[in-house]
Amino acid sequence: MTLQEIAQSINIECDNTKEISGLSTLLDSTQTEVTFLENKKYLNDLKKTKAAAVLINEEFANEVPEDTIALICDEPYLNLAKLSKLFAPEVIEIEGEKPVIGGFTKVMPNVYIGKGSSIGSDCTIMSGAYIGDNVKIGNNTVIHPNVVVYRDCNIGSDCIIHAGTVIGSDGFGFANTKDGKYIKIYQNGNVEIGDDVEIGANCAIDRAVFKSTEIANGVRIDNLVHIGHNCKLGMGCILTGQVGLSGSTILNHYVIMGGQSATAGHLEIAPFTTIAARGGVTKSITEAKKSWAGFPLIEHRRWLKLQSKIAKLLK
Amino acid sequence: MTLQEIAQSINIECDNTKEISGLSTLLDSTQTEVTFLENKKYLNDLKKTKAAAVLINEEFANEVPEDTIALICDEPYLNLAKLSKLFAPEVIEIEGEKPVIGGFTKVMPNVYIGKGSSIGSDCTIMSGAYIGDNVKIGNNTVIHPNVVVYRDCNIGSDCIIHAGTVIGSDGFGFANTKDGKYIKIYQNGNVEIGDDVEIGANCAIDRAVFKSTEIANGVRIDNLVHIGHNCKLGMGCILTGQVGLSGSTILNHYVIMGGQSATAGHLEIAPFTTIAARGGVTKSITEAKKSWAGFPLIEHRRWLKLQSKIAKLLK
Amino acid sequence: MTLQEIAQSINIECDNTKEISGLSTLLDSTQTEVTFLENKKYLNDLKKTKAAAVLINEEFANEVPEDTIALICDEPYLNLAKLSKLFAPEVIEIEGEKPVIGGFTKVMPNVYIGKGSSIGSDCTIMSGAYIGDNVKIGNNTVIHPNVVVYRDCNIGSDCIIHAGTVIGSDGFGFANTKDGKYIKIYQNGNVEIGDDVEIGANCAIDRAVFKSTEIANGVRIDNLVHIGHNCKLGMGCILTGQVGLSGSTILNHYVIMGGQSATAGHLEIAPFTTIAARGGVTKSITEAKKSWAGFPLIEHRRWLKLQSKIAKLLK
Repeated sequence: MTLQEIAQSINIECDNTKEISGLSTLLDSTQTEVTFLENKKYLNDLKKTKAAAVLINEEFANEVPEDTIALICDEPYLNLAKLSKLFAPEVIEIEGEKPVIGGFTKVMPNVYIGKGSSIGSDCTIMSGAYIGDNVKIGNNTVIHPNVVVYRDCNIGSDCIIHAGTVIGSDGFGFANTKDGKYIKIYQNGNVEIGDDVEIGANCAIDRAVFKSTEIANGVRIDNLVHIGHNCKLGMGCILTGQVGLSGSTILNHYVIMGGQSATAGHLEIAPFTTIAARGGVTKSITEAKKSWAGFPLIEHRRWLKLQSKIAKLLK
Repeated sequence: MTLQEIAQSINIECDNTKEISGLSTLLDSTQTEVTFLENKKYLNDLKKTKAAAVLINEEFANEVPEDTIALICDEPYLNLAKLSKLFAPEVIEIEGEKPVIGGFTKVMPNVYIGKGSSIGSDCTIMSGAYIGDNVKIGNNTVIHPNVVVYRDCNIGSDCIIHAGTVIGSDGFGFANTKDGKYIKIYQNGNVEIGDDVEIGANCAIDRAVFKSTEIANGVRIDNLVHIGHNCKLGMGCILTGQVGLSGSTILNHYVIMGGQSATAGHLEIAPFTTIAARGGVTKSITEAKKSWAGFPLIEHRRWLKLQSKIAKLLK
Repeated sequence: MTLQEIAQSINIECDNTKEISGLSTLLDSTQTEVTFLENKKYLNDLKKTKAAAVLINEEFANEVPEDTIALICDEPYLNLAKLSKLFAPEVIEIEGEKPVIGGFTKVMPNVYIGKGSSIGSDCTIMSGAYIGDNVKIGNNTVIHPNVVVYRDCNIGSDCIIHAGTVIGSDGFGFANTKDGKYIKIYQNGNVEIGDDVEIGANCAIDRAVFKSTEIANGVRIDNLVHIGHNCKLGMGCILTGQVGLSGSTILNHYVIMGGQSATAGHLEIAPFTTIAARGGVTKSITEAKKSWAGFPLIEHRRWLKLQSKIAKLLK
């Protein structure tokens, strides 16, 4: 699709016929991608963007770098949502290459494996599993019954994914129109899972809006955990039961999150941090190797002290 | 079934042979339905009931309206539970009309579609999905893999239901016997979902005990959300990850609930209310357009202030 | 497998050729099982063990009972993890007896039932359900669509398991190596569910590491509930939506847990206890018939009082 065609679809005039490959953020966009500026706190990122074009309010048009075309509009984020549909792949591919299945891999009955997918050797894909189109799975991985892996997602070797878990469902993203409609931002990214990862039953791990939701090697995830789009989990992170990570949470390596703890998203947690059960993280944690608890979150030892102070209110 | 037969099944004498169509609440019952009074706080509703008959303690029998028959018993709610089984449909229909599938709708392998169901045009029903008996789905709706829609539930047009989500499971209802057994109240209602609704992965939305659990047009629901029986979600409501709504919660239009927030059930929340993450709603909210937080719930700005006061206890 | 072979696999010398049947705890081990001591707080249990052998630090070797062989090593728990793989059954059995299905039981299309399993009479097994190898299900039980029952788990009579629920997934267990790898402790136990149990949609109930996760007769479980390995739920317990039980939680009979409440694991709750919504249980509750709330947990009436004291901080 050319930039001209894309612009026309949202009623913006533009005669540049450069071929566009997709959408991305200001910082991640390549020279064939279109980006957007909705919030002026990202003006610094705008200066560094390499994007082919940017959806932007007239007010900031003069800040757009020389090699990037300004697509001027009133509601950049809403227009991004509209454009996202143009780049959304089909829900299912009817045509394409048959999946490739490695040696000694067992595929049980009632499994669906999509076009262009490949599964390594020594894997077990159990009944009712759905492996979408263009999925890659490494060697010696077990996919338990009724697991769903959406299209374009990748899983490494030596992984175990327990029953009912969903990998690659759409992130929760939409733009509002002035008359109260929600316009879906198609989630055109994927999920990338490393090697030696175990994920419990009935979890939900969303695909990225752009690029990838990432789960590094050695991660352990318990049951009923929710991971929003574009999260990044470093090596060896541990998420216990019913943890919830809002979108774009970054956990550095060996972060441990206790049961029912959660993050507010768009934040980063330093390596070897421990969040106690029910802890609610709303800001980035920059110092490594500390333990935190409570909501609002404070250091764990201070939380214990605070609780004893609170208990004294009853006296 | 006649009223006489129904009464006999729970050892109440009644010679009225009126045909009875089902069970319902005092206020919702029609002239062919049977209702019950367990708690005297509903005596006002009793006066307004149009029900054919009411299960009721002898103590309140003289309050029953003229056109309603009193079925006098010691444990009205327990007897209601026993009667609910009489009106429960089969779990699966073996006979009945083949489903009707609209034009350009793709049905993938390993899908089950029940008797008497109909799916509109341009839909995609993905592998492993279960569409029960007598389900209606509109046009251009995507049902992702391994979604389960129980019998008699309806989904509108332009909806997206993500993988693993369950729609129409039984609400959590039972009556206690004196010797500590729980008697199931069969959930003979359904779920009604409007148009342009997106529901995330691995959610659970219970069917109503009577009538319908309702989700209006434009609602957006994230992953791992629990919605109890007889909830009603108005237009444009947003439920983020791991929200839990207890039974009979009414959300008016454009209510937003943050991650892991919850309601206690049998309450109503005014339009354009925002509940912050982890907020726990235990009473109705009558004033529109306000933001709330905490558990117990208070106004969000007061919650922020309270937290800073609590933090001072540490000094 | 002989004790000698087992010991060799983790580079411990031992020339005893006794046949070993499995692994277990100090107190539960039989004379053909191997156990471990990682934490000296269990030294009293060591004295009572009947195990064939115990993985143990040299420091405590002289405390090992006469009939038990000491397998001396630096990291007993890590070695237990390594041994657990030796006793893990196959994920799926390719050979074995065909399942036995009782009279009047309906098995819908796209159901998988494993080798050596048996299902009683008058059951309904709905589409997409996965019943693993060597599973026993009683009479008159309904398994809704896309339920997964892992191998070796048992379900009684008159049960209802709602759609998407997973029974018998692996408990969350692993040992750490010094260089930051997690070694899986294979969960070689199972789940035992009694009669007249109803479990909601999209729950996850983990199998035991040794022996059984147990759910007694008459239990009622709502949607999206997480039950860790080796939990024991007594008769008539009620778990409402989104409850989370960490591993080895013991609920005595008729314990009620409100929505989103949770336990920290390795604790016991007295009969007829009520935990209010969001209550977080971190210690055993020994006195029966009381109500508790909050996190940290206190008596419910004190919690109400505490909240009113806290509210006064705002004045």
